Amino acid sequence: MQELLDDLTKPKGSLGKLEDYALRLSAVQKQVPPRIRRKSVFVLAGDHGVAAEGVSLYPSEVTAQMMHNFMAEGAAINVFSAHCGFDVYAVDAGVAGDLPAWPSQDASKPCTESKAGAPGFFSMKAVRGSANFAKVPALGEAGFAACIENGKALARFAVASGYDMVALGDMGIGNTTSAAAVLAALGLDLDLVVDRGTGIDDAMLARKRQVIEKALALHGPFPSNAAGALKAGQAFAGPEIATAAGLCLGLAGTGVACMLDGFPITSGACLAARIDPTSVDSMFAGHLSRVRGHRHALDMLGLDPIVALDMRLGEGTGAVLGGFIVELACKIASSMARFSQLAVSSAPSDEVDF
Amino acid sequence: MQELLDDLTKPKGSLGKLEDYALRLSAVQKQVPPRIRRKSVFVLAGDHGVAAEGVSLYPSEVTAQMMHNFMAEGAAINVFSAHCGFDVYAVDAGVAGDLPAWPSQDASKPCTESKAGAPGFFSMKAVRGSANFAKVPALGEAGFAACIENGKALARFAVASGYDMVALGDMGIGNTTSAAAVLAALGLDLDLVVDRGTGIDDAMLARKRQVIEKALALHGPFPSNAAGALKAGQAFAGPEIATAAGLCLGLAGTGVACMLDGFPITSGACLAARIDPTSVDSMFAGHLSRVRGHRHALDMLGLDPIVALDMRLGEGTGAVLGGFIVELACKIASSMARFSQLAVSSAPSDEVDF
Repeated sequence: MQELLDDLTKPKGSLGKLEDYALRLSAVQKQVPPRIRRKSVFVLAGDHGVAAEGVSLYPSEVTAQMMHNFMAEGAAINVFSAHCGFDVYAVDAGVAGDLPAWPSQDASKPCTESKAGAPGFFSMKAVRGSANFAKVPALGEAGFAACIENGKALARFAVASGYDMVALGDMGIGNTTSAAAVLAALGLDLDLVVDRGTGIDDAMLARKRQVIEKALALHGPFPSNAAGALKAGQAFAGPEIATAAGLCLGLAGTGVACMLDGFPITSGACLAARIDPTSVDSMFAGHLSRVRGHRHALDMLGLDPIVALDMRLGEGTGAVLGGFIVELACKIASSMARFSQLAVSSAPSDEVDF
Repeated sequence: MQELLDDLTKPKGSLGKLEDYALRLSAVQKQVPPRIRRKSVFVLAGDHGVAAEGVSLYPSEVTAQMMHNFMAEGAAINVFSAHCGFDVYAVDAGVAGDLPAWPSQDASKPCTESKAGAPGFFSMKAVRGSANFAKVPALGEAGFAACIENGKALARFAVASGYDMVALGDMGIGNTTSAAAVLAALGLDLDLVVDRGTGIDDAMLARKRQVIEKALALHGPFPSNAAGALKAGQAFAGPEIATAAGLCLGLAGTGVACMLDGFPITSGACLAARIDPTSVDSMFAGHLSRVRGHRHALDMLGLDPIVALDMRLGEGTGAVLGGFIVELACKIASSMARFSQLAVSSAPSDEVDF
């Protein structure tokens, strides 16, 4: 793959990180050059019992309302996906409220139609929102396992449908609190991962920190291994975060690129990485969000974000935009003219470092 | 425009810099929301007499060879443009060698057809490469004026053709040397703007610096005003850099967004900014390149780059990618659902700062 990149009609290395992305994608797919046929984003939605502790400005009802918005194509992720060529799937991974009887996609059957139109929907209500982890484990053993299985089912659906790239997005009121607790249980300093989320004030921030600190003592300790990650996920993960972890685990080794979004999705990816370290090999960090703990979570995965636009929306917006850039890198490798195919006398010599 | 952004179904400010870009585009176009109908990139090509001083690894013939590559759709900019939806125009702004008799676009007539296919071509050979500024002015008064007029003609063509966004790209062996000299004449420290370009070694770097230092003494001084900028452009600008300056000047006040690329294009934009400070209002910095002086040149314009992917290729690659993201910001503003149009009980109150 490096030979191919150096044969493209440009100075060597002049496309910088795009060349790194093409190399990584080639390694994920185990083919030269890599290719991207279809791209999709799964917007994983869930509710969080810990919202009852007053850690977010929005009521939990907003999660279900935003599902309506995704299906009506009025949300930010719909605009991002249309612009960047991603099919949208909204996933009820564990929303508390009832949702309409939208035709639900069957995860055991591939999608053969072109989806560029209306979003698809998956009904995978593993739980009706997580429990309040200030008091009891958020998902517990059964709930966490169910979410992991749902994520793996989505991964199988993506592979069977011919998606070479899957972007992960989240929607869930209270999920930066859940993500912060997960990451603290995985070993990050609590002060690095507690954030204002959608804009809470100092008092609410202090409450958020205190809630997590007490819960870490209540549910811990968490050893630094796969068993500790399972325990952390059962204790703190909301349904969309646990489903994200399952999706990351399910995509491992399949050749499908896994585009991470912001803080909550990355916390799920960190759970997956601790459970199966090989799952990191197919991940790309779509963007760096404004949520302060995000960079530290990405550092835990050893990933460098593709764009940094101070976004903090979630829904997969950063994953889709980063994915569009990885796809560009892929097209560069497959579509540009090559020196070896042209009679260009001035093809750069291998003796100099361009 | 800010009211519209705050009415979109997302937490206020959560799209970060995308919201800034939408605001700026709205100000450029003087309409709410802004719109992007067609986008184009002008790849301005020219040769540089100073290449005779041994400041680049590539021979000047490569400039003409790359024009063939642009027209054959094999270059990086062709792949970027196809991926991001830009029409490509290759412009012979002053290539030294002869080019084939490609059908040349008439700058006085708008392009009415959809260009998504083959690239257009402009033959605007103001000079056959610039003169060697180590000895004489690169373009002189007549050559610089001719390039500025060519750039303004391209701007009129873009406006008449309905392009709401124009990306500027460059191709020219030796043009980082020309750009560095222009920027040093405009007041930047020489040590901040001399760079390895396409990968030269220490000895060549020292030669490049020495050539520019002597030339500054030969052609200077350069007062910090429009007259000084004209003098700097006449002394050091290559044809593509001077044409870029003319294009920036011509787009000023037309409502067309002007997407800057890397170091050479930005040096042209800095000339334009000194000649007509209002021209900066319609500029966006598509990306931050790996060329070390680029950040300082953008600082001179007060512009924040949209992406930073360590690219250093030119051709408009960074301008096109940044432009795609500005277009996304535009679509966000025009296409997302608004709280005021939905019966959402939980629409965020204006009393809290999300």
